Amino acid sequence: MKKINFASDNYAGVHPEVMQAILAANEGPAVAYGGDAITEAAIHQFKQHLGADAEVFFVLNGTGANVSAICAMAHSYEAVICAEKAHIQVDECGAAEKIAGCKLLLVPATHGKITVEGIRTQLQRIGDQHHVQARVISISQSTEYGTVYTLDELRELAAFAKAHGLYLHMDGARLANAAASLQTDLKTIAEAAGVDVLSFGGTKNGMMMGEAVVFLNPLLAKSFLYIRKQNMQLVSKMRFISAQFQALLSNDLWLNNARHANAMAQHLAQALSEIKFIHITHPVEANAIFATMPTALIEKLQTRYHFHVWDEGLSEVRLMTSFDTCIEEIDAFVQDCVIG
Amino acid sequence: MKKINFASDNYAGVHPEVMQAILAANEGPAVAYGGDAITEAAIHQFKQHLGADAEVFFVLNGTGANVSAICAMAHSYEAVICAEKAHIQVDECGAAEKIAGCKLLLVPATHGKITVEGIRTQLQRIGDQHHVQARVISISQSTEYGTVYTLDELRELAAFAKAHGLYLHMDGARLANAAASLQTDLKTIAEAAGVDVLSFGGTKNGMMMGEAVVFLNPLLAKSFLYIRKQNMQLVSKMRFISAQFQALLSNDLWLNNARHANAMAQHLAQALSEIKFIHITHPVEANAIFATMPTALIEKLQTRYHFHVWDEGLSEVRLMTSFDTCIEEIDAFVQDCVIG
Amino acid sequence: MKKINFASDNYAGVHPEVMQAILAANEGPAVAYGGDAITEAAIHQFKQHLGADAEVFFVLNGTGANVSAICAMAHSYEAVICAEKAHIQVDECGAAEKIAGCKLLLVPATHGKITVEGIRTQLQRIGDQHHVQARVISISQSTEYGTVYTLDELRELAAFAKAHGLYLHMDGARLANAAASLQTDLKTIAEAAGVDVLSFGGTKNGMMMGEAVVFLNPLLAKSFLYIRKQNMQLVSKMRFISAQFQALLSNDLWLNNARHANAMAQHLAQALSEIKFIHITHPVEANAIFATMPTALIEKLQTRYHFHVWDEGLSEVRLMTSFDTCIEEIDAFVQDCVIG
Amino acid sequence: MKKINFASDNYAGVHPEVMQAILAANEGPAVAYGGDAITEAAIHQFKQHLGADAEVFFVLNGTGANVSAICAMAHSYEAVICAEKAHIQVDECGAAEKIAGCKLLLVPATHGKITVEGIRTQLQRIGDQHHVQARVISISQSTEYGTVYTLDELRELAAFAKAHGLYLHMDGARLANAAASLQTDLKTIAEAAGVDVLSFGGTKNGMMMGEAVVFLNPLLAKSFLYIRKQNMQLVSKMRFISAQFQALLSNDLWLNNARHANAMAQHLAQALSEIKFIHITHPVEANAIFATMPTALIEKLQTRYHFHVWDEGLSEVRLMTSFDTCIEEIDAFVQDCVIG
Repeated sequence: MKKINFASDNYAGVHPEVMQAILAANEGPAVAYGGDAITEAAIHQFKQHLGADAEVFFVLNGTGANVSAICAMAHSYEAVICAEKAHIQVDECGAAEKIAGCKLLLVPATHGKITVEGIRTQLQRIGDQHHVQARVISISQSTEYGTVYTLDELRELAAFAKAHGLYLHMDGARLANAAASLQTDLKTIAEAAGVDVLSFGGTKNGMMMGEAVVFLNPLLAKSFLYIRKQNMQLVSKMRFISAQFQALLSNDLWLNNARHANAMAQHLAQALSEIKFIHITHPVEANAIFATMPTALIEKLQTRYHFHVWDEGLSEVRLMTSFDTCIEEIDAFVQDCVIG
Repeated sequence: MKKINFASDNYAGVHPEVMQAILAANEGPAVAYGGDAITEAAIHQFKQHLGADAEVFFVLNGTGANVSAICAMAHSYEAVICAEKAHIQVDECGAAEKIAGCKLLLVPATHGKITVEGIRTQLQRIGDQHHVQARVISISQSTEYGTVYTLDELRELAAFAKAHGLYLHMDGARLANAAASLQTDLKTIAEAAGVDVLSFGGTKNGMMMGEAVVFLNPLLAKSFLYIRKQNMQLVSKMRFISAQFQALLSNDLWLNNARHANAMAQHLAQALSEIKFIHITHPVEANAIFATMPTALIEKLQTRYHFHVWDEGLSEVRLMTSFDTCIEEIDAFVQDCVIG
Repeated sequence: MKKINFASDNYAGVHPEVMQAILAANEGPAVAYGGDAITEAAIHQFKQHLGADAEVFFVLNGTGANVSAICAMAHSYEAVICAEKAHIQVDECGAAEKIAGCKLLLVPATHGKITVEGIRTQLQRIGDQHHVQARVISISQSTEYGTVYTLDELRELAAFAKAHGLYLHMDGARLANAAASLQTDLKTIAEAAGVDVLSFGGTKNGMMMGEAVVFLNPLLAKSFLYIRKQNMQLVSKMRFISAQFQALLSNDLWLNNARHANAMAQHLAQALSEIKFIHITHPVEANAIFATMPTALIEKLQTRYHFHVWDEGLSEVRLMTSFDTCIEEIDAFVQDCVIG
Repeated sequence: MKKINFASDNYAGVHPEVMQAILAANEGPAVAYGGDAITEAAIHQFKQHLGADAEVFFVLNGTGANVSAICAMAHSYEAVICAEKAHIQVDECGAAEKIAGCKLLLVPATHGKITVEGIRTQLQRIGDQHHVQARVISISQSTEYGTVYTLDELRELAAFAKAHGLYLHMDGARLANAAASLQTDLKTIAEAAGVDVLSFGGTKNGMMMGEAVVFLNPLLAKSFLYIRKQNMQLVSKMRFISAQFQALLSNDLWLNNARHANAMAQHLAQALSEIKFIHITHPVEANAIFATMPTALIEKLQTRYHFHVWDEGLSEVRLMTSFDTCIEEIDAFVQDCVIG
């Protein structure tokens, strides 16, 4: 029997509307490398969501988006302040260091969120030639722990960044989930955070592959065509990425997918929280649940479900929901937990 | 009216059988990052074509394949010998230098093909700490000029590489066209050339996107998982790349697509060669035609056809055919040439 | 009046015997880039101290030594485990990340020394393609906090490194001070720590400039000639570096300089420890003293002495002694402290 | 018997006045990393020679100067146009590619000098994301072939660079020899060439080690402190480099050393040109002579003299003179040539 997926939103397949858009894009030849009409239209849609001044570039994956964004913001002797467990720090195999040449300066994060107090500890030795110069704050929204910065939290970070001449990068691999959680739109989040460059994720929200690097600070986009190409992130038949974004940004698909995933997470969290030997370890605000449970139970569950053991020592697991998670899967999982 | 494409084989869309495979792969969740059954099967198919010892990794685009291959073969103080107009030299925005840190040592190439004599001129100052140390020969098969190394030419390069302790990299973005041209299989070409690492192209031969880095020298593959990830070439929903390769390598689709493109090129070349004010400048052995023609004609043709002016000074154009080029398009083009 | 130096051992000048050796080396022309007799002799001396199999290369400064050593030990997707405040982390402007491309994995350090327990927390996700792979442990001996790993501590680190397939790099910018402190020779320290590559410092111990990268694991030295050159660390008139090392390694000058600096530090620490409003914050085992003292006193002292305020919040200063520190300077400083 | 040096100006020792300055600088402690009075004074001297707006940074060697200068001028997706046999291309072990990440675009050079016509062939595909973007022209003055660009030639290059938005870098490892040859001052040369960044060489003109990176375009210097440190080119006891420059720039020592070396080269060239089986292959305008001579003679001469065989195939040698070359050495060499 095929295992049920709570491992990751990138175990999910492609949303049917996205797939339909891919099929529709396959009508004969089109200009390569983004010179096609679909790409133009998809960029236009992004501008409608994020502002007419936004500069939009499609890339191939999340690491490509994040690291290329850093390349556009920082010289190699500059540094990126981020959470200790940020994706760019722990899940990108050192790409930021190799490709951008930058050091990451780590800040402890409660439930994945960093604060001005934390950032301040890494904002040091400015003007000292022996030390890297902090230039970028990078935050994930929603975070790697399934939490979401509130608009007020974002505004505080934005004000701090502006006051200290730092750029703000948002790793929005799951920005849709954050918007759904905050019940607001993309632009409100981006503006609250004073985002200079946004990595906007498509893959985890129902696309086949593809991310967007969106410059809300268009001055930083000046040379991004070359950065994208040199970073091996330029796709030739770009329309097939663009068409996916078109579908995602149409008819609120991006939002509905995220809402569904979030709702499934809430449902699952609610049920798990009522089981006395299970303890939820982070607030469930997007589409991830972290919980401790007995080791024996974990082992049993792994025979039927895909999910990651997050911390073996703590007997903590991560459960992720997706646009295609269904209520029956959750009920089955909960049932299997209850019977232990 | 939509322009007819002779610009590039990556203006083409996706072959229907490839698209069908993508659709079929979209059956619920699957393990990400290549841990799925489709990826396993596609790798198995590659091994059937290229040998059981081959190590196969899927990446996102041609530049990603070539540069990651170089990372696996050479340290930054080592160098890659290639043709003056090799794709890695003139069309990858310096990715080899930035990402691998390597210098490219250029060799003049007649019709895109380099020779032992040429390579020898760059094989110098071995053991001299002031000079980069040549480590890799990189050739394109078929070449950027639509020509194809014969098996004997490959064997000569292979023998030279082996005798001098050099690795051989083949940029096979259009290897299928070369195999069709030589009327042989992939393995015969790879063995003739003593290929250590092969960039095998899918995109230009009917796929949506995706390339494979194939290690015929499996020792070099040891750390490639990390190189691929750090080079931002690891895709999460990998099955959608793998499924394309499965389709391409099934039922000789790769070969039939290439044969068709080559045949269209022959047809076009034949017709153009009979027009007295058009001069074909390189042997037409794969799916590209280079030809000089009157400037006024070029301008007129550009209103109806996509193609690249290769050398303005020479009034030279490049015409590429693809799996989806049809005879009517060629006849129309030729007709428009004839009436001038 | 010229300020008295407690700022750094690199504020010190050149030891007269070293200067004499420089003068003596200036006898007409000599083969450049290390092909001269003085360099050969200096390398021979290093082998006498560190073993006949040691491979020795002279470079220009400490950052050059450390980062080039890392280049010889780790690929860009591998990582270096080091102390949170290691020189390579906080005082080399991100050179390790830019030049070697490696991530540094930080370990909390008590008094500058890391432990097996700390290292273990960073030795994770081995074999996971998404995460950098730990390859090197880097320790400073003596540490940035003026402490010294005991031979037993080194042996424990060495055993752990060997057991986990990690290389051990020692930043020995002040190795002489450690040897003096431990009352042992260089080889005993290197062997206890199972050092693979050693950065051996000359500048801070009486030389004008110059460091040595010494490979106790000679296999790692195979391509270091190219690494050194490409890292811009090859000096043309090398004999003038080599001559300094010759002098330093002759007549126990390296040891006597270090002993003197250490003794001065002991003397100063002893005196300061008797002043009730001064608190020494790290064990004084080499030539550095860290101490808290009243802010007003710091300000007053800074008018007559060069030294660094290490932590403004804690009102903590760093005082360093050198081969040329004299007892009168210490007495004056203590006297100025006492009168407050 | 010790061989006489015609191998290189970096086989020479240190000029006595430079050595005297080093000795004089060794008067007790001084602030490290350039915060000392000698460094301030040396920078002031540079400004007197090259303009009050010049920004001056001392580095450790020629490769460090050139590559760090490139880092200050070009992003990794930009390129440097230079001569096919420029030092940065053939003698720096690929440091420009690794450290700056830049591609070098090569221009054929007659007698080591590139021309606007040559540069124009590499100034292509501007605005094309697939291709590196030319940003810098780098010339060597005097050249690697002992020739010197005239002021008019420099003005033509400067005008072209300015017209095309390119920066001009001058590798002035032997700029003093060029100034002596042109009978002009440093500023006149720099202004004629519209130099943005100058690598000013000390080592080959009588110093022990040390080069200066001088920004005539001070905007480019903004972050150079960090570039220098991250590129491992910051020396702690900087006064010992600065003192050498002070001596070199005082009393016309730089000019007299260069004049002497040039005069010796003229003398040698004149004598060799009268020997019928010796043919001088490049104009002798600075301190290098390239000449073909019988292989048997080369072999015989190599037993008594250090010099490089430049091109074995052509039986061509390079002979360099230096500040310490004496007339007797030349006469001996010529005599040995004559008797064959």
